[in-house]
Amino acid sequence: MRIAIDAMGGDHAPQAPVEGALAAAKEWPDTTLLLVGKPDAIKAHLGDNPPSNITVVEALEKIEADDEPVRAVRRKANSSMVVAGRLVKEGEADAMISAGNTGALMTTGLLVVGRMSGIDRPGLTAILPTVDGVGVVALDLGANMDAKPEHLVQYAIMGSRYRQKVHGIDKPRVGLLNVGTEAAKGNELSKAAFELLSEAPVNFIGNVEARDLLYRNCDVLVCDGFSGNILLKGVEGAAETVFSVLKTELMSSWKSKLAAAILRPNFRRVGKMMDYKRYNGAPLLGVGGLVVKSHGSSNAEATVHAIRQARTAVGNGLIAALADDLGGK
Amino acid sequence: MRIAIDAMGGDHAPQAPVEGALAAAKEWPDTTLLLVGKPDAIKAHLGDNPPSNITVVEALEKIEADDEPVRAVRRKANSSMVVAGRLVKEGEADAMISAGNTGALMTTGLLVVGRMSGIDRPGLTAILPTVDGVGVVALDLGANMDAKPEHLVQYAIMGSRYRQKVHGIDKPRVGLLNVGTEAAKGNELSKAAFELLSEAPVNFIGNVEARDLLYRNCDVLVCDGFSGNILLKGVEGAAETVFSVLKTELMSSWKSKLAAAILRPNFRRVGKMMDYKRYNGAPLLGVGGLVVKSHGSSNAEATVHAIRQARTAVGNGLIAALADDLGGK
Repeated sequence: MRIAIDAMGGDHAPQAPVEGALAAAKEWPDTTLLLVGKPDAIKAHLGDNPPSNITVVEALEKIEADDEPVRAVRRKANSSMVVAGRLVKEGEADAMISAGNTGALMTTGLLVVGRMSGIDRPGLTAILPTVDGVGVVALDLGANMDAKPEHLVQYAIMGSRYRQKVHGIDKPRVGLLNVGTEAAKGNELSKAAFELLSEAPVNFIGNVEARDLLYRNCDVLVCDGFSGNILLKGVEGAAETVFSVLKTELMSSWKSKLAAAILRPNFRRVGKMMDYKRYNGAPLLGVGGLVVKSHGSSNAEATVHAIRQARTAVGNGLIAALADDLGGK
Repeated sequence: MRIAIDAMGGDHAPQAPVEGALAAAKEWPDTTLLLVGKPDAIKAHLGDNPPSNITVVEALEKIEADDEPVRAVRRKANSSMVVAGRLVKEGEADAMISAGNTGALMTTGLLVVGRMSGIDRPGLTAILPTVDGVGVVALDLGANMDAKPEHLVQYAIMGSRYRQKVHGIDKPRVGLLNVGTEAAKGNELSKAAFELLSEAPVNFIGNVEARDLLYRNCDVLVCDGFSGNILLKGVEGAAETVFSVLKTELMSSWKSKLAAAILRPNFRRVGKMMDYKRYNGAPLLGVGGLVVKSHGSSNAEATVHAIRQARTAVGNGLIAALADDLGGK
């Protein structure tokens, strides 16, 4: 198995992707990791004797975090992200992983790897953290801003197959993100999607509310890209803010500092539960190859998580199964 | 000034609204509080010598939390909520407050109190908590599921006037809820709304992201009712879940219990910051009278907050100012 890694993408590149790839290469000797980027920059973090299942692929350009996505993908044909996408397209790699510019990664999926036949709009997934540590696979989180009801059905089918193939959940419960649990709730899109999902070949459990997601009220959450993105950022922002305010408060006196020091392991456990990096590595579903988004702030450990997700997806034939489901063979 | 209070609405009714009204009656002797509901139930919590500025208004029916809104408002003409709305409509009260069924309250605003001239769709507001304790006024949070760009402009105008009249903010910054801060971001609705807001008579600062709301990146947040509701519930759910998980974790050993006991005042301060009840009392804007939503789980203290907001709004002539703004005289 061969996995291409954009070594230049993300806040901590190239160190985090390279160190993550090193750890993964040792853990999975059957997997070849193709580190795509500037060879010098990559080799500076590889050490003197990198494992034989690590290969450096030269790509001298880099897509920046604030580059305009479509323009960047079109113009920077020799960027680490686009080259990684091309490796997937040409069958040189079974998957690609990038922590770089999300918009550019979606564009790479669409323009370089190409849309899966039978899919109108690919969907960007993420795993939302849950109290039980299992997570909810949510899509779309921003690839498709003006979704149609049919798109949400495709998301439900693809998300279900992903949960089954990658997470081993047999009959994943599909929930429709809505403002209430009753069938008639919501906007025109969600009402129409509810009807279609009720007939779709998925285990549809009805509308679900954002409030209960952290208690895993479903396994696959489907939504349009706009409200999904708002949800994701709202939940991330709220959790981060609570921790940050708590930290400031606990550092406010010697007494609270002392007590907080005793509680450090407890805080760490709670922080870990809510930590997006732990759930790292969610795919862009609906493109013709496996394109995995790694969190922009990923460290080496988070990179390993993303590689693990990609390995499992490739090993279990996710893309072929999706093509089957969608009748696009 | 006369404020009608739905004494039967909310999780802790009639106790919470009645006790809140008692406290408010003592704090503001110039304000008459009309407690609307079953006289016996209300009197059980009023004590032997209620202040003279408390009046009980009989309403023998009650709208339940799970009643279908439009049907309930139409059929239960003698319910506490509808009677309170009628008091506003007929000029017997300057405002009404209810912690009951939100859908029914919106319907009461529309059908009983009546739409403000010049307004297509009223918007439900709430104050989202912020780290600095000031809060962001957000609308619409669920009154209007399929908003048009023009509706968002009306929300911006009404929300700005509300912040100015009730919170004393001179040039409130209006932000448009979006998936990124760049002008071209978002779905069809947000792109069109961005154009219109740029020309509108408000202090529009552009797109804002859900992630930064808790740091008060704007004073008035405008959004469609669907994504606004998703945001509100996502943020509420995340904050509550973090606290609940933290609590379980800190009660897991005698050592952590002890340290947590020392930190109790610190936790309380942080909890208070994120507590929606503290920001209680946000109006349904765009109806012809002041209709204030109190949080369903309000206690007496939260009820007092809602009464305070209503008093300030009435005292500063909010409704007349809005009618002026919207040219609907």
